[in-house]
Amino acid sequence: MSDSHFDTVAIVGIGLIGSSLARAVARGKLVGRIVIADRDVAALAEAERLGLGQAYESDVADAVKDADLVVLCVPVGAMEAIGKAMAPTLKPGAIVSDVGSVKASVLKALSATLPAHAHIIPGHPVAGTEKSGPGAGFASLFDGRWCILTPPEGGDAAAVAKLKGFWAAIGAEVEMMDAAHHDLVLAITSHVPHLIAYNIVGTASDLETVTDSEVIKYSAGGFRDFTRIAASDPTMWRDVFLNNKEAVLEMLGRFTEDLTALQRAIRWGDGDALFELFTRTREIRRRIIDAGQDSAAPDFGRPHEE
Amino acid sequence: MSDSHFDTVAIVGIGLIGSSLARAVARGKLVGRIVIADRDVAALAEAERLGLGQAYESDVADAVKDADLVVLCVPVGAMEAIGKAMAPTLKPGAIVSDVGSVKASVLKALSATLPAHAHIIPGHPVAGTEKSGPGAGFASLFDGRWCILTPPEGGDAAAVAKLKGFWAAIGAEVEMMDAAHHDLVLAITSHVPHLIAYNIVGTASDLETVTDSEVIKYSAGGFRDFTRIAASDPTMWRDVFLNNKEAVLEMLGRFTEDLTALQRAIRWGDGDALFELFTRTREIRRRIIDAGQDSAAPDFGRPHEE
Repeated sequence: MSDSHFDTVAIVGIGLIGSSLARAVARGKLVGRIVIADRDVAALAEAERLGLGQAYESDVADAVKDADLVVLCVPVGAMEAIGKAMAPTLKPGAIVSDVGSVKASVLKALSATLPAHAHIIPGHPVAGTEKSGPGAGFASLFDGRWCILTPPEGGDAAAVAKLKGFWAAIGAEVEMMDAAHHDLVLAITSHVPHLIAYNIVGTASDLETVTDSEVIKYSAGGFRDFTRIAASDPTMWRDVFLNNKEAVLEMLGRFTEDLTALQRAIRWGDGDALFELFTRTREIRRRIIDAGQDSAAPDFGRPHEE
Repeated sequence: MSDSHFDTVAIVGIGLIGSSLARAVARGKLVGRIVIADRDVAALAEAERLGLGQAYESDVADAVKDADLVVLCVPVGAMEAIGKAMAPTLKPGAIVSDVGSVKASVLKALSATLPAHAHIIPGHPVAGTEKSGPGAGFASLFDGRWCILTPPEGGDAAAVAKLKGFWAAIGAEVEMMDAAHHDLVLAITSHVPHLIAYNIVGTASDLETVTDSEVIKYSAGGFRDFTRIAASDPTMWRDVFLNNKEAVLEMLGRFTEDLTALQRAIRWGDGDALFELFTRTREIRRRIIDAGQDSAAPDFGRPHEE
């Protein structure tokens, strides 16, 4: 069980991440057969038109019955229902993983619903774009990106090694982490950033003194950077906040505390405090670029005519 | 005075914006002569090496003496000192403008220090990148971007028309606005976004439970989008907050109020409130793309291998 080959993989949910996974797996010829499941018949039909798999099922119980690996690519709030639906037909010894942005709640939902013979290994490839749907995926989405696996304590080592090999074969860098720590790390690197992006876009569109047209027209001043992630899938993100409540509230509390201190510095004209922070934050950007986690091109490399 | 040609333009401050302006003016052959001034001798030497102008002065009084147009490309906190320094040698009838991100305080500082014969017309091209210095500029920075002019009431109409023509010849779209309204609009589209970007980068780097290395490693989850503008010039941004205090505090108050409501929705599990906001914000993104104010490419068009 140590190599990374699976005979049959079921990808449940064929949105941006599911369809990118299907493409990446096909590109690498990593599995014998891909079964694609989605209860949304339009998405399933589009997946079929795009030729993303070898079989297409609207019923998850049918989709998983021959699968050695099931990857759930659905909003984290749907895990419990899907776990229940697939439990009766899941093959003994199958690995069940996912790509959700929250890990402790997924582990809990799947552990509560799947049979004891299943190897539950939650996962989270830290990759994506603001686009949604089967047509938005692309095979290179995970290339060089981190994929975090959060196996439960006492989980089957061979199954973990096999899933790790699978993601490495896709092109991702694999990291192992405790589910609770994952949820804390992602709260600050992903969940709170999304929340404040959604929030400022909401605040801007609710103003009476500045029109929406003005907000849009002058968004190049900085605002537009926030609108990208505020265009992400609403169902997915609603579920993230509902399922990572404690860590998000903890990080949000710190963010607000720091923002209140900045507000006070502005009110009292404390330029040194502002300058000190604004200098320190440059260094983090530099390290992100050095680590290959973002483009060094000005403006993210947005097109400028030269 | 209605055409857009100036015999001599003095560009005071040769950072990202000043050097882009020099390049754009040269590209369009829009003026007879460009005089570049900067009190930073290293920046001035780099400007000369790059051939950005026809003359280079470290003393602003010398730089402006033949200029028909002076464009101040310095942090807004420096306007008063520069106004004082150039007042004695400013040519009668010269137009004095700037590129600062705050307008009411600039109008006030220049009106208080420049002679009555000067035509003071503050301006703000809404364009830039997170890079700084003479080498970071490029000629197309203002192409198709908005440039807001905020002439004082009763200002000389011919001078305003001439400056408007100048920016249009550069390639910008010119909009006229009251200085106070400008400061309110930019507080929400630029200043508060920068503040919360700086703030979250600071919050993330101060955590004890999540290391800086983890923050950097998993920044692709959303955080990295914030680090770009949090890498902007610290002096410029300190001055923006100190000089647009009222509008920033007003917009920040609304942002915090809305964020507190979202926090409450998360705490009480109000998924509908989250979903409603997350759906509404997508529409703003769509309108920004439709208005040509951002790229529609996923991830801002960051490079992905296909």
